Amino acid sequence: MARAVSLRPVGELELLPVAVDAMGGDHAPSAIVAGARAAADAGIAVVLVGPPELVGDTLGLPLVPCTEVISMDDDPAQSVRTKKDSSLVRAAELVRDGQACAMVSAGNTGATMGSALLRMGRLPSVLRPCIGAPIPRPGGTPVVLADAGANAECTPQMLVQFARMAAAYCTARYGVEQPKIGLLSIGEEATKGTPLVKETHELLLETGLNFFGNVEGRDLLNSPVDVIVTDGFTGNVALKTMEGALKFVMGVLGDVIGTDDETKAAGMTLLPHLLPFVGDLDPDAIGGAMLLGLGGVCIISHGSSSAKAITNAISVGRELAIGGSTSRIAASIL
Amino acid sequence: MARAVSLRPVGELELLPVAVDAMGGDHAPSAIVAGARAAADAGIAVVLVGPPELVGDTLGLPLVPCTEVISMDDDPAQSVRTKKDSSLVRAAELVRDGQACAMVSAGNTGATMGSALLRMGRLPSVLRPCIGAPIPRPGGTPVVLADAGANAECTPQMLVQFARMAAAYCTARYGVEQPKIGLLSIGEEATKGTPLVKETHELLLETGLNFFGNVEGRDLLNSPVDVIVTDGFTGNVALKTMEGALKFVMGVLGDVIGTDDETKAAGMTLLPHLLPFVGDLDPDAIGGAMLLGLGGVCIISHGSSSAKAITNAISVGRELAIGGSTSRIAASIL
Repeated sequence: MARAVSLRPVGELELLPVAVDAMGGDHAPSAIVAGARAAADAGIAVVLVGPPELVGDTLGLPLVPCTEVISMDDDPAQSVRTKKDSSLVRAAELVRDGQACAMVSAGNTGATMGSALLRMGRLPSVLRPCIGAPIPRPGGTPVVLADAGANAECTPQMLVQFARMAAAYCTARYGVEQPKIGLLSIGEEATKGTPLVKETHELLLETGLNFFGNVEGRDLLNSPVDVIVTDGFTGNVALKTMEGALKFVMGVLGDVIGTDDETKAAGMTLLPHLLPFVGDLDPDAIGGAMLLGLGGVCIISHGSSSAKAITNAISVGRELAIGGSTSRIAASIL
Repeated sequence: MARAVSLRPVGELELLPVAVDAMGGDHAPSAIVAGARAAADAGIAVVLVGPPELVGDTLGLPLVPCTEVISMDDDPAQSVRTKKDSSLVRAAELVRDGQACAMVSAGNTGATMGSALLRMGRLPSVLRPCIGAPIPRPGGTPVVLADAGANAECTPQMLVQFARMAAAYCTARYGVEQPKIGLLSIGEEATKGTPLVKETHELLLETGLNFFGNVEGRDLLNSPVDVIVTDGFTGNVALKTMEGALKFVMGVLGDVIGTDDETKAAGMTLLPHLLPFVGDLDPDAIGGAMLLGLGGVCIISHGSSSAKAITNAISVGRELAIGGSTSRIAASIL
């Protein structure tokens, strides 16, 4: 399935726009186009991809036309094969064909992965690409959680590759040298967890990576490590649990502050002090997750992405492309 | 390993005290003894278990003396076999021997499970006991998460039993008839997840249980179901992730409110409105998790349990014992 990839020189990528799936996400196309416009205004070249009649006003941005759209409900594996002229598949082709330096989509995650994998190909020796999702760490660089949901079933060898790729990504994106790696388990002891975790623990000790040891669910938001490695099932459950808990508390706080004039005034007093934390925890400010292990840069943004989230994702996509993240990731597993 | 169990008549249990491991937990023995004293003051018979010289002042409560203590760091499997005169093992024996209606410990979770399993035995047909942990649901009954950490590796047949036992427990503890069952996965579709999840999904459809379908991590605190079924690895990661996220936000809020006099005043204004939520989310108010599938009632309290948490755990233990929860759970899997 994976084709041989030859990486483009970074200097060549610098001249290319970021391809943006105009039809992906709950607020597409309006929020996507607005976010792309803001990125363009900040000096980043972008090109939209989508059916002209559905995208509507492009706000002056270039549009690569196509005829199909993969919806959130479409079966990922099937849709990327049958909808070959969809905005997702065409965006991935622009990266493959050297017409874009990176792609960004807030659409169907499985189909985004499938399009990127089929069109950009897998890096040599990569068993499976994974999702590296940034988890905010107030006052520090985000923690990279990998795999955040691409592979429900994993082998120890896959998890070791996730660790290598996520470490390279952490260095490329956040400048962290020798990132500390944690393995998600249900206790700090090497003897705790599933056979998958125990075997991966042993293998990680031999990699030469900066392996910290096991970490637990409670460490996600207060992490002693820079990278958390896990299978895509556990990673996805943990990430959504964390997001759900944060959203829940924010909702409670919003309700309480909105109770009456007195509580509103109290909320206004606290707001300037809370804002730095809210900003740090805001998924829209984080810039999306990256697919690790492909022959090009693909950024997956939240389905609920706002224009701001898309602008950030575009910016991150370009930085990773011209920063040579793909070469770094390729080198990490050779 | 499991012995045949014969359940005691509920009327007999009503006359028995709750056995409390005086040496279990980060704040043992002082918080444990104080919590037991408060339960006794509320009219619940309790008996402490522990080495007299370590327990110290029992505040007038009866003490079953023993000579050993299993620490948090002790290997669970080994310690329950070698430390036969430990407070944990002796507490489980009191239940087995009809001298206590239930046991409560905030100590080493693995050793608590081991002691209870070895001494009380497994209910007939139970493949594996599991931990049923209550997750607070503000404004409603708590959601029972099973397995919250007893079995890192599970089969579909085990998960189906967890669903049955947790449903019986949910009815016994919270009075919910025909509890709605959710299966923790990474998407609502039956086709999402690991082979374990997919096969369990199929089996749950045939059980006659009130099976809702798959739920996701984000549903833990905002749940459409009364019971969430998962393997003990995923359940433990999800529970700790949720607790970590809540603790993190509470910490941020506390810091912000403590900034200066103005923010303290604002905090005082919001406090009465926040308290109901904080109370609902307070693990100390929840009363601990129950081991499901044993021949007696064993309540596992948080390692960080306060006196209040222990009082609640004792109260829950007694209620479950005299409410016939063990018979209900036994009946659920026959």
